Amino acid sequence: MTAYTATVTVRLKRGVLDPEAETTKGALERLGFEVDELRSADRYELDFDAADADAARSRADEMAERLLANPTIHDYDVDVSER
Amino acid sequence: MTAYTATVTVRLKRGVLDPEAETTKGALERLGFEVDELRSADRYELDFDAADADAARSRADEMAERLLANPTIHDYDVDVSER
Repeated sequence: MTAYTATVTVRLKRGVLDPEAETTKGALERLGFEVDELRSADRYELDFDAADADAARSRADEMAERLLANPTIHDYDVDVSER
Repeated sequence: MTAYTATVTVRLKRGVLDPEAETTKGALERLGFEVDELRSADRYELDFDAADADAARSRADEMAERLLANPTIHDYDVDVSER
């Protein structure tokens, strides 16, 4: 078993309203920053052991699909590296 | 002016309690996944125009320091790319 860190980034699908991002963009503009667009995402870094990188990636995919992301509104991507 | 996307990742400093991450880790374990550690972070992707990459980076740094991150409890990093 090798120690891996999987980084799962969960973002809203295009077209899904993101009031948090709109609020943050408005606050930046009130501070004087010009921003064309702001997208927010959640990022999870997970440490676990797996037999190899493929096994680590498929484990992280399964965690994203079963808990971290809601497939109705979210896209996610997974990046795996050895610790 | 060139169009840039700055990615700002905001994470809790080591030692700051993260109840959301603990809850997520517990939920994954109840689903049968073994996880040694889970860290959560917020990720912001900001689109804006700047004269060059250095200007874009310093603008994103300033946005992180003034609004996106709380320097008492957060670390952040900035990554800038042309759109």
